Amino acid sequence: MRLQLSTWPEVEAYLEQSRGIIVPIGSTEQHGPTGLIGTDAICAEAVAEGIGAKLSALVGPTISVGMSQHHMEFAGSMTLRPSTLIAVICDYVMSLAEHGFERFFLVNGHGGNTASIGAAFAEIHMMARGRWAGAAPDLRMNAVSWWESEGAARLSDELFGDRSGGHATPAEVSVAQHVHPDHIKQALLDPALAPGSAVGFFDARDYRRRFPDGRIGSDPGLARPQLGEQLLAAAVSDLAAKYSQFAEAD
Amino acid sequence: MRLQLSTWPEVEAYLEQSRGIIVPIGSTEQHGPTGLIGTDAICAEAVAEGIGAKLSALVGPTISVGMSQHHMEFAGSMTLRPSTLIAVICDYVMSLAEHGFERFFLVNGHGGNTASIGAAFAEIHMMARGRWAGAAPDLRMNAVSWWESEGAARLSDELFGDRSGGHATPAEVSVAQHVHPDHIKQALLDPALAPGSAVGFFDARDYRRRFPDGRIGSDPGLARPQLGEQLLAAAVSDLAAKYSQFAEAD
Amino acid sequence: MRLQLSTWPEVEAYLEQSRGIIVPIGSTEQHGPTGLIGTDAICAEAVAEGIGAKLSALVGPTISVGMSQHHMEFAGSMTLRPSTLIAVICDYVMSLAEHGFERFFLVNGHGGNTASIGAAFAEIHMMARGRWAGAAPDLRMNAVSWWESEGAARLSDELFGDRSGGHATPAEVSVAQHVHPDHIKQALLDPALAPGSAVGFFDARDYRRRFPDGRIGSDPGLARPQLGEQLLAAAVSDLAAKYSQFAEAD
Amino acid sequence: MRLQLSTWPEVEAYLEQSRGIIVPIGSTEQHGPTGLIGTDAICAEAVAEGIGAKLSALVGPTISVGMSQHHMEFAGSMTLRPSTLIAVICDYVMSLAEHGFERFFLVNGHGGNTASIGAAFAEIHMMARGRWAGAAPDLRMNAVSWWESEGAARLSDELFGDRSGGHATPAEVSVAQHVHPDHIKQALLDPALAPGSAVGFFDARDYRRRFPDGRIGSDPGLARPQLGEQLLAAAVSDLAAKYSQFAEAD
Amino acid sequence: MRLQLSTWPEVEAYLEQSRGIIVPIGSTEQHGPTGLIGTDAICAEAVAEGIGAKLSALVGPTISVGMSQHHMEFAGSMTLRPSTLIAVICDYVMSLAEHGFERFFLVNGHGGNTASIGAAFAEIHMMARGRWAGAAPDLRMNAVSWWESEGAARLSDELFGDRSGGHATPAEVSVAQHVHPDHIKQALLDPALAPGSAVGFFDARDYRRRFPDGRIGSDPGLARPQLGEQLLAAAVSDLAAKYSQFAEAD
Amino acid sequence: MRLQLSTWPEVEAYLEQSRGIIVPIGSTEQHGPTGLIGTDAICAEAVAEGIGAKLSALVGPTISVGMSQHHMEFAGSMTLRPSTLIAVICDYVMSLAEHGFERFFLVNGHGGNTASIGAAFAEIHMMARGRWAGAAPDLRMNAVSWWESEGAARLSDELFGDRSGGHATPAEVSVAQHVHPDHIKQALLDPALAPGSAVGFFDARDYRRRFPDGRIGSDPGLARPQLGEQLLAAAVSDLAAKYSQFAEAD
Repeated sequence: MRLQLSTWPEVEAYLEQSRGIIVPIGSTEQHGPTGLIGTDAICAEAVAEGIGAKLSALVGPTISVGMSQHHMEFAGSMTLRPSTLIAVICDYVMSLAEHGFERFFLVNGHGGNTASIGAAFAEIHMMARGRWAGAAPDLRMNAVSWWESEGAARLSDELFGDRSGGHATPAEVSVAQHVHPDHIKQALLDPALAPGSAVGFFDARDYRRRFPDGRIGSDPGLARPQLGEQLLAAAVSDLAAKYSQFAEAD
Repeated sequence: MRLQLSTWPEVEAYLEQSRGIIVPIGSTEQHGPTGLIGTDAICAEAVAEGIGAKLSALVGPTISVGMSQHHMEFAGSMTLRPSTLIAVICDYVMSLAEHGFERFFLVNGHGGNTASIGAAFAEIHMMARGRWAGAAPDLRMNAVSWWESEGAARLSDELFGDRSGGHATPAEVSVAQHVHPDHIKQALLDPALAPGSAVGFFDARDYRRRFPDGRIGSDPGLARPQLGEQLLAAAVSDLAAKYSQFAEAD
Repeated sequence: MRLQLSTWPEVEAYLEQSRGIIVPIGSTEQHGPTGLIGTDAICAEAVAEGIGAKLSALVGPTISVGMSQHHMEFAGSMTLRPSTLIAVICDYVMSLAEHGFERFFLVNGHGGNTASIGAAFAEIHMMARGRWAGAAPDLRMNAVSWWESEGAARLSDELFGDRSGGHATPAEVSVAQHVHPDHIKQALLDPALAPGSAVGFFDARDYRRRFPDGRIGSDPGLARPQLGEQLLAAAVSDLAAKYSQFAEAD
Repeated sequence: MRLQLSTWPEVEAYLEQSRGIIVPIGSTEQHGPTGLIGTDAICAEAVAEGIGAKLSALVGPTISVGMSQHHMEFAGSMTLRPSTLIAVICDYVMSLAEHGFERFFLVNGHGGNTASIGAAFAEIHMMARGRWAGAAPDLRMNAVSWWESEGAARLSDELFGDRSGGHATPAEVSVAQHVHPDHIKQALLDPALAPGSAVGFFDARDYRRRFPDGRIGSDPGLARPQLGEQLLAAAVSDLAAKYSQFAEAD
Repeated sequence: MRLQLSTWPEVEAYLEQSRGIIVPIGSTEQHGPTGLIGTDAICAEAVAEGIGAKLSALVGPTISVGMSQHHMEFAGSMTLRPSTLIAVICDYVMSLAEHGFERFFLVNGHGGNTASIGAAFAEIHMMARGRWAGAAPDLRMNAVSWWESEGAARLSDELFGDRSGGHATPAEVSVAQHVHPDHIKQALLDPALAPGSAVGFFDARDYRRRFPDGRIGSDPGLARPQLGEQLLAAAVSDLAAKYSQFAEAD
Repeated sequence: MRLQLSTWPEVEAYLEQSRGIIVPIGSTEQHGPTGLIGTDAICAEAVAEGIGAKLSALVGPTISVGMSQHHMEFAGSMTLRPSTLIAVICDYVMSLAEHGFERFFLVNGHGGNTASIGAAFAEIHMMARGRWAGAAPDLRMNAVSWWESEGAARLSDELFGDRSGGHATPAEVSVAQHVHPDHIKQALLDPALAPGSAVGFFDARDYRRRFPDGRIGSDPGLARPQLGEQLLAAAVSDLAAKYSQFAEAD
């Protein structure tokens, strides 16, 4: 059940049954020569909608641009300042809290969002305490990165092993191929252009210098839509269980 | 051509041909008993993608939550603070400007966004002047509300006349039905619950008091997916011409 | 009755009778070779005080610097960032709301302020909702641009026709001449330097390039103080009626 | 020479001769039973214009609402948040700096503004350093409180002695009477309601509790317009000398 | 070598040799019935100074209040809003970058700071890119949590095993006892009041409800100053190596 | 009694006896060729702890980086933007106010902090009014600069006379020497490099140009640790009395 495809009376009825909502959060950033710029948003949305479908849980609108400053040397990458992303997450949660939502489950598609999400959650708790004091609703936020779900992580490991890498991974490219089979891209993937991330990276120039075609130690040439389907199913299965527990806990 | 479904080398190639990009901006707010909460985002995105397809122009990620404070008394409505929405638009434009984009064409689906969009554009010009001084790129932003395009406005008038109203209009509901034919909703639409907007409205409580089921003088019962198709075509045709002129002007 | 020329016990007494206040908002920006830099503030203030005098309504302090980024290539122009202007309007309204004012009528003298005013009004509604929740006062804000009042617009059209233009108009220059008859300026006004605004303008450099002496298609050489007096009277008459209706509505 | 009453070519010509500008800053707050709410803005503006007239120096638009949180328990008082006031001062200075102004002389009418002014000046220096680095213009800001000018302070002391007090003083009320002789107010002034400020005050409630009619140990019943004229002349004389030295220093 | 105990000529000389600086960041929050409120700042500072002493590296001033909203139901806990903490870290780094520092090594004493630190680092990279564009210095920031250093983690595990817990751990209490032997506190430590953290916690009320005396599954009764000395040595040894590698890398 | 060296039950007990807390605030900035960069923080902390020890009053964590933009041309100087410093002070006070603290006594070591402190206090009063309205606690903040305490000022005058100067004074250097006797620095102190401050200074470049080695008219060669001990005792004695009066006043 997607919020965007519902009416307000439907949401009102939903709130009689549940206080929970799932929000996908991704990014708009380069994913190597063959990965879609929207990969992270596409994957997060697919996983969130999978959970929503399985559990008849409501899925809110995707945050499709995230914190991607380190990708800004590659054409088409977009980024929110961390302060903007924090404000967006605060506004999402505080808006929905006005209607009675109390359990916010963010399905994250991009590691670069993690810090801003964490900062936003703390900011929200402080805002709520300031606004409602002792009478504040019992707001709870949780963020999970879909590729770290047990099932998806294990399957990715089995399928791709050490050719999985750290960015533009065959797992995420596979999921995006499954969701958008008409947009499967081909390009030469020179391993020399995708070294592993031994010492990490810093700013956008540093990233481009170390990882000239945008990948980090990954071989997205292994990606296949049908593998994406399996990975998606694995992530949905695990995270649906996690969401249920979260949404129903006292 | 959607940015989210492109790779960075594709965007790099696109920038050889054009400096323009189209960005849909909508909202997530009640649209009466039968209108989808995502109506404004759905319509803006459909129009933007129509223009993009017609002209091979790039379409960026949709801003799907807008400034909707006045709808907050209806379940499921979300809003960004104006300051957040301004920051989001600034970050979108400034990110893309780093890659060489210079013509930003916002296709807007929600009247409540207009002020924040205008404020953001001015803020961007000041930011760019501060950052690059005399060497600033020639950034140009334009925002058009799709339902005000000549063709769509005329057609809507012919089709619905004075039953069009001011919110949850049969025109926007038709377009959303066309895009999401599996999500056409039915409900009793009592005209007494959707008075016209004689003196406007103020905050969210005031809105709900005046317009108890969320509509403003509209009869979305007239909406039909095939009318949506026609309205969409009319808006795309007009705005594609407008975009071309904008993107190519010196 | 001007707030600045009143004492606090007088304001306390006024609040027994009325919840309304008028606030002029203008700008400090070039108005062509003969227009005063303060034209927009001067006109807005004159209209506001005219309404106040006619109705014994309170007039607050003028916001004399507005959002004028596009005029910044002409000496003496000043601008607030949109975010600053929004903050100023919020503080004006929230301050006065603490004393019981609930109807805020902004008389605007500058088109460039419109977006920031609209954004500020939304921000105020959200602030008030956050601060007072269900017990928030019924705050209502309205902004009118004096030159768009029916009477002033019609008279300007009769007097100046298509030589009215879009900036540094003979109407606003006339009103400023009427208010400051000792500061009527003369200069050569070459029509070639004031082309009409066919395609609009973008940033400050773009503005100066298109409109080299600051005017947009206007002939302020037609301005006369006595015409200003008539225009002022027309605007005051119309807007006083509008204010009354606004301030007294439930 | 007032900026608001000048044209842009006049300002351009002025900048050939001088890099200096005077900006009055006041407040909109209660000044006891007989003092005008605009007293601080009126006085600051009168002093600034006196200096401007004496030296043919440019006078910018008055900042008429200041930081007055401690007066908010008296009807009609308005306040900017310190952060807003800082932003306003930054925008004034940064706007004018774009045209080549480098010496900013604030004539202050309200003690409560002092901290925000100081913070703004530091913020401006940091902004300028960030924006222009080593090539930053040599921006200099100075703020003087008119009643602390040697001449005005001595005269006030001679005229009013220990009945001068700390707020709603006979000196400032006299100056406002001189500027607005049609708005001289009468009211009973019970000394018991205006105790001296032995231990200071804290927030607005505390202020009202200690100083029930708004005055701090003052007797504005001693105010006379002709004394205001003398005080004004004394302040202008002293501060004109101070401005000259400031504007011309290397 | 502590920055606070150095002179500016000494720092100037240091910058000839190194571009690196170490900054301790802790918190001011409850640490159970016996743990010092400053535990995290004390530990981070001790580790940072240990590294500085070992390597003659410069150690900047400690950020002693962190992001601790979840501890706010215990007397004496303080917290910065995430946005404030981000601003503080930005200002520290940007200040030092003006002098030529390029390698910033944060020794962190508090898990709750991690998200804000990460957001700050991204914000700094964006600021630097905006300010210096292509000529930006090669700023690199790294944050390490001392208790996660391999040596300290292993030793803590050996010493305390599953009585280590998640907050107010015997390891951190031991280090604080070693640094402040005159402030070793005694209190009854009822295991029932310090359950383990099975499902995490959310806001401050939730934290207090789950963990009534502030500890999370820990037994700080095992803490001893001499164990603190060993833990400190282990952390310093590991992190000094890590700092060297970081500060010297190209 | 230092907050950092206390446990939360101890703070809870303290709050039964007192609502007051002392917070030292300093800076991290050059203090001439021989003065420690941390001088202002060291002095403020020593004075605050002296008061705390004398009166068994609680002393919070030191704000060790202040507003020092004018020192930024000397290596090692750090500065917060005024807006950051204001946010930090707000968060300190608002955090502690949640536990019931109501009297905040800032012992200041740096003149450059004064404006930001004043702005922060006003911002806090407005925040508290917004948050708690009529039920706001009676928050009171006071800031004292230790070197302006009567005893310290007189003693400094006796000891150093007109060789005291305005920055890097022998008084503050003496106190820092007393606190850190192992960090007494020697350097040639050429009087020609430390002219007096006749006309003040503006930004950092201006400061360095006027005061090439960082001092303002001071001779820190007169500093001695034993004089620091006397100065410290004098400041503590005076300010302890002031704090008592402040903390106990109704």
